[in-house]
Amino acid sequence: MYYINWNHAWEGRLTQSLQSPLPIEEYITRLNQDLSDDILPFISMSYQEKLKQQINHITPLLHKFKYMVVLGIGGSALGAKALQKAFAPEQDRPNHSGNWLWIMDNIDSESMNALLTSLNPKKTLVVTISKSGETIETMAQYFLIKTWLQTTLKDSWQKHCLFITDPDSGFLRQEAQKENIQTLPVPKNLGGRYSVLSAVGLIPSAFLGIEWEELLNGANQIMLPLRHVTIQSLQKHPAWTIAKWCYTLLKNGYTQLIFFNYIATWSMFGQWFIQLWAESLGKSGQGSMPLSAIGVTDQHSTQQMFLDGPKDKGCILLSTKNYIPGPVFPPTIPENWSWLKHRQLNELIEAEKIGTAAALVTHDVPLLQLQFDNTNCYAAGELMGLLMTTTLFTGWLLHINPLDQPAVELGKRLARVKLGDNHYPKEAAILQSFLNTTSLEDPT
Amino acid sequence: MYYINWNHAWEGRLTQSLQSPLPIEEYITRLNQDLSDDILPFISMSYQEKLKQQINHITPLLHKFKYMVVLGIGGSALGAKALQKAFAPEQDRPNHSGNWLWIMDNIDSESMNALLTSLNPKKTLVVTISKSGETIETMAQYFLIKTWLQTTLKDSWQKHCLFITDPDSGFLRQEAQKENIQTLPVPKNLGGRYSVLSAVGLIPSAFLGIEWEELLNGANQIMLPLRHVTIQSLQKHPAWTIAKWCYTLLKNGYTQLIFFNYIATWSMFGQWFIQLWAESLGKSGQGSMPLSAIGVTDQHSTQQMFLDGPKDKGCILLSTKNYIPGPVFPPTIPENWSWLKHRQLNELIEAEKIGTAAALVTHDVPLLQLQFDNTNCYAAGELMGLLMTTTLFTGWLLHINPLDQPAVELGKRLARVKLGDNHYPKEAAILQSFLNTTSLEDPT
Repeated sequence: MYYINWNHAWEGRLTQSLQSPLPIEEYITRLNQDLSDDILPFISMSYQEKLKQQINHITPLLHKFKYMVVLGIGGSALGAKALQKAFAPEQDRPNHSGNWLWIMDNIDSESMNALLTSLNPKKTLVVTISKSGETIETMAQYFLIKTWLQTTLKDSWQKHCLFITDPDSGFLRQEAQKENIQTLPVPKNLGGRYSVLSAVGLIPSAFLGIEWEELLNGANQIMLPLRHVTIQSLQKHPAWTIAKWCYTLLKNGYTQLIFFNYIATWSMFGQWFIQLWAESLGKSGQGSMPLSAIGVTDQHSTQQMFLDGPKDKGCILLSTKNYIPGPVFPPTIPENWSWLKHRQLNELIEAEKIGTAAALVTHDVPLLQLQFDNTNCYAAGELMGLLMTTTLFTGWLLHINPLDQPAVELGKRLARVKLGDNHYPKEAAILQSFLNTTSLEDPT
Repeated sequence: MYYINWNHAWEGRLTQSLQSPLPIEEYITRLNQDLSDDILPFISMSYQEKLKQQINHITPLLHKFKYMVVLGIGGSALGAKALQKAFAPEQDRPNHSGNWLWIMDNIDSESMNALLTSLNPKKTLVVTISKSGETIETMAQYFLIKTWLQTTLKDSWQKHCLFITDPDSGFLRQEAQKENIQTLPVPKNLGGRYSVLSAVGLIPSAFLGIEWEELLNGANQIMLPLRHVTIQSLQKHPAWTIAKWCYTLLKNGYTQLIFFNYIATWSMFGQWFIQLWAESLGKSGQGSMPLSAIGVTDQHSTQQMFLDGPKDKGCILLSTKNYIPGPVFPPTIPENWSWLKHRQLNELIEAEKIGTAAALVTHDVPLLQLQFDNTNCYAAGELMGLLMTTTLFTGWLLHINPLDQPAVELGKRLARVKLGDNHYPKEAAILQSFLNTTSLEDPT
């Protein structure tokens, strides 16, 4: 359960929510059509019953391993990273003795060399995640890890592999068939940044003992009213109302959206949201730049800019009504801080959250407060469901397709050309022109 | 040694560097005056000889401990975090057996409870870092940890404490004298976000076995020409030329500055830079919002927004000429990726970096490339020195004081009032007004 506080959402240049550019009926028609065309599986979640069976079936296998390595990048990494940090953070703390999960979302040699020399392959399950089954960085990692597994484990190497990929097409699917490697599907039309509640995010969760079914339950709570929507139910749906607020922000020149997160263990949800929002909405010169800030830490970093920098930022402030109780401040506290005596640590974070909210409002920053009853998996499922649908609707209001990411193809092709792939003559010309005009200056 | 590539810095709406608002002589006068007033210790580094002696003297003590816990936030945490991640990342990798460092830069109960229940105090040194010696979050942590140390270690608890704080004033200084706790100074006038190359960043580094003297050497290389500056030497100093470019960006409506970092192990330098830039320049409605992006990871996150979102972003792209060699792709690679055969992993990151740079330029993003000869501590010292001085000069060009952070005081006082501190009647009124207009809606 969560609460939305609109009291200070209409500060600064905002006065009231703009009308949607099209009549609301048009969005309802689109939603129904897209659901019936099955291009919004993160709303319909039509895959979930089968997925539950698959995860339950594979969990005993997962638990045979002490270590899991995920090969994945972008949407194939960020959801699992957020969930690990939120619900299985022990690995980063002293004296951890449980399972270990490493998510390899970059391709630097240092990390790869370290992994291949320090990890015991016999106790390791390597999960390769790529919706397309062709992502260059993930495939590159897989080629190297496959060699390592084959060298160290000989004939049993396939038993240490699991693929999560498209049910029909792509290299990973072919490789699975050829090498007899176990797989789980990424449902059709479920793009990477909307895939956290498929096997992509839930297999790492199941390995870590996270209550992944509660994540699904929480998200269902958000999605349910959208599956059979009416004018009335859409108008009052929080994803719609928040999307209209974000749209109004943008139309009033607020080009940056702060996601200020006062649930510290959920800190990586900010990075997950940044990808979701930036890659969905950064199109045709539009979209607000998402900024992740962690309370209370970033009060000592970006807060000065939020308060007294350019008036181009709106803020969603996330918190909980029920912080986990912390240790009690001792009666020996010096007189200067006597107001802390006998209080608990969580009271400090609550007070600072209110201080930040009031300071933002005092500085005319439009502020929407999102407060969750607690910080369990159900609540996290609600949050992720809410943010995914808010992103979708904001894209629709901006006349942007929030499900694709066409601009990033150019950089990918340029890199392939640089490495000798000769299938892209247009990109080869761009690269040549770039390199011709690039000369290193004298060293400084 | 590093190279600056200006070839594509003047894309988009930029054509040439704007003149500085005041004649360059004025900035030289100011620099000389501020140096002689000793308010720029991160440039003069007049503290460094004494600091070297102090660190060398205390290092044997540091190495008696297996665990270090740093209590600190903002500038007291971010530099050490960046250095740990860059030069002592083993803790996050499989089968780590060396020293462990945890940097506590938030005040959530979960992390504190976990630390107090799982850490062995006998093997732990707690380093409390606060320039003022009064930072509320750090003091709160200290009060709790002190109780824990006293309870578990009895009379020897002080031997497990080290303070890094102002040489003369503040609570930590008094506490050190009262409890006979060892200390190291933060030099006078060295603000948190400019303090990484003092004991603040170098004590954690020394504990981790990082070559901290090389960090100083690298920074000295940047600072040396600024200590006896002429018109000619300032005009060609990279911090001045980059600051003028950043100033020109802002005056042309580029309100966001991407720090796109293709040195993966240096990934946390982005967070360090964000604090440095945002807190220094976010004043009087000015300053560009710094954005941290990691290559290649964020090609799959924010890159779409950088390329096709609003044309309000400039980019500093950081890389190295000499990536650490990675494993070689095997000859068995499928035909689709045959251009990878026999190449090394580091060639992929290099190609993707060039692909990203060319894509940004194709999309009219002003791009400055910063390329380091290698990725050792000397280079990191150069980078940090360069970014600190660039930030300073950009502030001067904007007529902003880059050394203070006045706006964040409001939130701090509001939090204290919320907890019962009755010294701030003005803030008490603001808080009351905020709370009066804040009501939670029905749950959603």
